[in-house]
Amino acid sequence: MNFNLTILGSNSALPKINRFSTAQILNISERFFLIDCGEGTQIQLRRYQIKFSKINHIFISHLHGDHIYGLPGLISTFNLLGRKSDLHIYSHSDLEPILSFLLTNIERNLQFKIVYHQTNTKEKTIIYEDKKVIVEAFPLKHKIPTTGFIFREKQQLQTLIKEKIEFYQIPISKRKEIKDGANFTTSEGKTIKNSELTLKTKEPRSYAFCSDTQFSEKTAKYVENINVLYHEATFLENLKIRAKETMHSTAKDAATVAKMAQVKLLLIGHFSSRYNNLDAHLTEAKKVFENTVTATDGFTLSI
Amino acid sequence: MNFNLTILGSNSALPKINRFSTAQILNISERFFLIDCGEGTQIQLRRYQIKFSKINHIFISHLHGDHIYGLPGLISTFNLLGRKSDLHIYSHSDLEPILSFLLTNIERNLQFKIVYHQTNTKEKTIIYEDKKVIVEAFPLKHKIPTTGFIFREKQQLQTLIKEKIEFYQIPISKRKEIKDGANFTTSEGKTIKNSELTLKTKEPRSYAFCSDTQFSEKTAKYVENINVLYHEATFLENLKIRAKETMHSTAKDAATVAKMAQVKLLLIGHFSSRYNNLDAHLTEAKKVFENTVTATDGFTLSI
Repeated sequence: MNFNLTILGSNSALPKINRFSTAQILNISERFFLIDCGEGTQIQLRRYQIKFSKINHIFISHLHGDHIYGLPGLISTFNLLGRKSDLHIYSHSDLEPILSFLLTNIERNLQFKIVYHQTNTKEKTIIYEDKKVIVEAFPLKHKIPTTGFIFREKQQLQTLIKEKIEFYQIPISKRKEIKDGANFTTSEGKTIKNSELTLKTKEPRSYAFCSDTQFSEKTAKYVENINVLYHEATFLENLKIRAKETMHSTAKDAATVAKMAQVKLLLIGHFSSRYNNLDAHLTEAKKVFENTVTATDGFTLSI
Repeated sequence: MNFNLTILGSNSALPKINRFSTAQILNISERFFLIDCGEGTQIQLRRYQIKFSKINHIFISHLHGDHIYGLPGLISTFNLLGRKSDLHIYSHSDLEPILSFLLTNIERNLQFKIVYHQTNTKEKTIIYEDKKVIVEAFPLKHKIPTTGFIFREKQQLQTLIKEKIEFYQIPISKRKEIKDGANFTTSEGKTIKNSELTLKTKEPRSYAFCSDTQFSEKTAKYVENINVLYHEATFLENLKIRAKETMHSTAKDAATVAKMAQVKLLLIGHFSSRYNNLDAHLTEAKKVFENTVTATDGFTLSI
């Protein structure tokens, strides 16, 4: 099952030629979740050869321009490409009137429906769920109401070992509970351990997205034990004051959250355009949390 | 005096990686006029190293997304870069309420004023004038009210030849009219021809922008004798029907307008994203009007 991340934009408010504003694509088992949609997202989708028709769900962290100004163009392009299926957008409730007003005036013949889902910016809530995936939104600490998102693969049922099923002649009626973890008792009263009958399923994987936010211990609580954490690192520690003023994080802040939350891997992004080279961000973060990677445009990761 | 054009975006509605949506910069004597502002214009401005602070006037041909979706991000960036001076936008009157609504909700602390100037989409009118430059808007033929723009250098006064002024002892009171083209009569009653007293000034240069439009003889009238004409060429002749349906032009249409208007040079652009290679557009146009150039992203021209 795919669980692949592609970074489409890694810069903060002012985009650069090679670092666009925030946008990411997370492909979980062919569900292509778009996370934030900065200006130029549709161009990046083309650059990294992601099919527009696969995107049905867009998650918007907050209503700052560098996280949403790609939406009108993307929606227009969906329409020109003949889209008919619903597009689901998960965001603060203010997005709907703003986007609707714009689209009503500029894109007069939208051939598909936009379904708006309001995120709760006060507490952690499930905002999306299907057979295989669950998505939660949780509050971040920024200048305007902002949420992070956690994408979790659901725990899959165990697979029965065909040969063992036949050997012990396990009836169909018993198989569901064995998949769920039960032992099996033969007609002679012998107990066969579940581990002998099933293949172990993989631990469900998870990805958390935290942009934009200042450092907060609460964030670490929300993302505890996540596999891969994306945390913004707009500044370096020597601009800590600027980070506080603008309610953003430093590379050290991001690493501290990763360490507290005991995640497996930290991705840092949302870099201020003042930085051309990002080596110092990586060095600063690695001092606190070794397993850190710089998530620039085009970076891909199979989780 | 500079009269330089830079193409920032040359594609039609669906941008490609190497061909963004419509936007151009025309630098006339350090006035940086931005013409249309498709998504990603601010990224292209960075790519082609044009200073944001130099842009004070934006001309919008019509309110289709691929000509305006770069405005919110550009305005946001102006603000973040500390802009204080007024920004003048020339467009259909509907732009103001749409953009204002968006900016009021998203960009809450704009530190500069946006001055909206309404274009007349029914007849040719002067929309901008200063000491050196005059800009006219004129109607094009598209699905919604659309204008083209003509940028004209003003005729400069002739320069007096210093040695002749001294030789004929021409008084200061007479010099202005000689600059304007008058002859001079000496105290002995001898007439000195103006051409002996002055250096010829260059012919004023001009640039016309026509996007988006279907073929129209009226366009040719509006842009008669222009130096450089940019005319959209979304399609090739074999998609003439599609061109008519969408109210766009073919390469041949663009060349026909150029020929009728007797311009010096034709630039074609606004290409449909179905074309990767644009050789056929150039060949088709050149059959009708030899002096044609393909205006793709990054193309620059000193007029």
